[in-house]
Amino acid sequence: MEPSVSYPILLTPGPLTTSEATRMAMLRDWGSWDTAFHAITASVCADIIAIAGGETTHVCVPLQGSGTFAIEATLGTLVPADGKVLVLDNGAYAQRALRILQVIRRDAEVLRVAEDEAIDARRVAAALDGDDRITHVVLVHCETGTGILNALAAIAETVAQRGRRLIVDAMSSFGALPIDLAVTPIEAVVAASGKCLEGVPGIGFVLARRDALAASAGRCHSLALDLHDQWTYLERTAQWRYTPPTHVVAALKAAIDQHRAEGGVSARGARYTANRRALVAGMQRLGFRTLLPEVLQSPIIVTFHAPGHPAWNFGVFYREMRDRGFVLYPGKLTRIDTFRVGCIGAIDTRTIAGMLQAVAASLTAMGVPDGATSAV
Amino acid sequence: MEPSVSYPILLTPGPLTTSEATRMAMLRDWGSWDTAFHAITASVCADIIAIAGGETTHVCVPLQGSGTFAIEATLGTLVPADGKVLVLDNGAYAQRALRILQVIRRDAEVLRVAEDEAIDARRVAAALDGDDRITHVVLVHCETGTGILNALAAIAETVAQRGRRLIVDAMSSFGALPIDLAVTPIEAVVAASGKCLEGVPGIGFVLARRDALAASAGRCHSLALDLHDQWTYLERTAQWRYTPPTHVVAALKAAIDQHRAEGGVSARGARYTANRRALVAGMQRLGFRTLLPEVLQSPIIVTFHAPGHPAWNFGVFYREMRDRGFVLYPGKLTRIDTFRVGCIGAIDTRTIAGMLQAVAASLTAMGVPDGATSAV
Repeated sequence: MEPSVSYPILLTPGPLTTSEATRMAMLRDWGSWDTAFHAITASVCADIIAIAGGETTHVCVPLQGSGTFAIEATLGTLVPADGKVLVLDNGAYAQRALRILQVIRRDAEVLRVAEDEAIDARRVAAALDGDDRITHVVLVHCETGTGILNALAAIAETVAQRGRRLIVDAMSSFGALPIDLAVTPIEAVVAASGKCLEGVPGIGFVLARRDALAASAGRCHSLALDLHDQWTYLERTAQWRYTPPTHVVAALKAAIDQHRAEGGVSARGARYTANRRALVAGMQRLGFRTLLPEVLQSPIIVTFHAPGHPAWNFGVFYREMRDRGFVLYPGKLTRIDTFRVGCIGAIDTRTIAGMLQAVAASLTAMGVPDGATSAV
Repeated sequence: MEPSVSYPILLTPGPLTTSEATRMAMLRDWGSWDTAFHAITASVCADIIAIAGGETTHVCVPLQGSGTFAIEATLGTLVPADGKVLVLDNGAYAQRALRILQVIRRDAEVLRVAEDEAIDARRVAAALDGDDRITHVVLVHCETGTGILNALAAIAETVAQRGRRLIVDAMSSFGALPIDLAVTPIEAVVAASGKCLEGVPGIGFVLARRDALAASAGRCHSLALDLHDQWTYLERTAQWRYTPPTHVVAALKAAIDQHRAEGGVSARGARYTANRRALVAGMQRLGFRTLLPEVLQSPIIVTFHAPGHPAWNFGVFYREMRDRGFVLYPGKLTRIDTFRVGCIGAIDTRTIAGMLQAVAASLTAMGVPDGATSAV
């Protein structure tokens, strides 16, 4: 086998760079009907619930597909046809949740703030107080579009105090940023295998309150995405309802074992935070500016302004960086020219140091003196 | 790495036993935004179209999730709200398609025959002639529930002559049994990565007529399962619309390369047919009886009657076989006691010979003299 170091490092928000142990777990075929595989599924689900402290209140339902599939499954299963959803929107993933609600015909309202601005719980309170018909609220914990971190605990309290139900898209935070379902009132948390748990992409999972999920039979607009059906089948048979991506599930088991060995959420969050600090400090030394002030910046992914120099071109920079062994991510903002660098995956500050050297070399190769946004 | 021979062989209809080369393709992480990964996706889609001879008429749209996700996506995207579907039902997978149609609220009619009986094109003709409102017909090419092979070409001609559109669930036949879209009139063929192409499970794909798919914008009941949206995004960006299971896609590329090297559909079908012949002959020597007569029997999976001896118990037999290195599959019939053995995957007649020895030893261990259905 070639050493994995010969492949580019993914500084992207998932797929990300996984450990060799995680990838090696995919070298075996598993029968989906086999009890040995059932045990893997049960272990993964139990560990995921424990990571979020939801053992007494929530159940974990895994679902085939990307995280978006799990988001749509959650909205279609938990929000009744006569429900109304308030979407807290400061970025691309909130807008995707809104689009899902439109397609599946659930009434929705949007509280929109700028993409470089956190959502204020007081504005959420006002929106809920002004509309009794709102039954559910959707919040994106960490908006991967920019890397902004929203105030989950304060917003959850605000929503619960008003008797509404909170659905959290924790896709890019779960496993690295604390979410405590025993303390924070949350109806459902949605995440995926290929993010901060450092598995490979291919399944999403939903931590849903048991009572809410139990009350949702026959509600979903889709068979494949029916979370209630998926859950009851799994409970009854220990099997996935339809063919699971067995190798992805086995890799997630290996990844969760490594998550535990590292020291769980706090240790993983600390490693990512160290990555982010090294990244931001190093990029600032090269003249780059972050989109967000540090107080709003998650340790997941950082958005940088594009340099203003006329020789700058992200496509060229991307290829220069890739040739040096690092895959970056384009920006997701429409109005401002940006690019993104992920801090997550099986990487550490040595990886970031190497990446910063590659940035300096790439700028030199492009004839861009530094990352300053003002053109010289 | 442990040799793969230490793991059980899966004689199941997917997940199945894959080659080491296919699994090794998962040892690398790919960025979903990277051009190298775009090239893998494009190669996989082009190869799948070529396997079915659909280069000039059809497009290949891959979709995250199991095959059922792709079936629901196809029905929800291609059948308009005022369409009506005739489901040709001789088994469990046709019944699943019917359930999907009920959930997504498409009008549906069923032509049901016994599970051990092939669907007669003349009965399809009569059903279509009797109901002008039927716009689409759903046929399961090989019913994995029993292993029965339906007469695709004759039924496709019958449907086309009446101006209706045929959707084929080719989940367990694609890649091993010939489907020629240049000759046989088919609106869409649906299959998945982890079946006769011998990839790992995790994505489905749909070969849809370009004109039909182009006319289906905004029709789907789901965002995640919207095949038109998935297709146009892929055409525009070369990327999957939402995070793809990159390792599964890379494994499918490796598996398709091996499919070509083996000699394509005819060679793969011949290998599976040899497996099936060896399996049925060997099991008959042990006294077992197949559910189906040979003329209806696909080379994909074989259903056997359970022995009638009072010491027979499938759960015990399953564990005895598993301890000897072979994973079998339970039956899927409600009225008759059966079990199933798959003939597909990276296996050959030597594998079947080993499996037959294991069956003999397992029967001895259980105190069951042979596979005879009449109790002694």
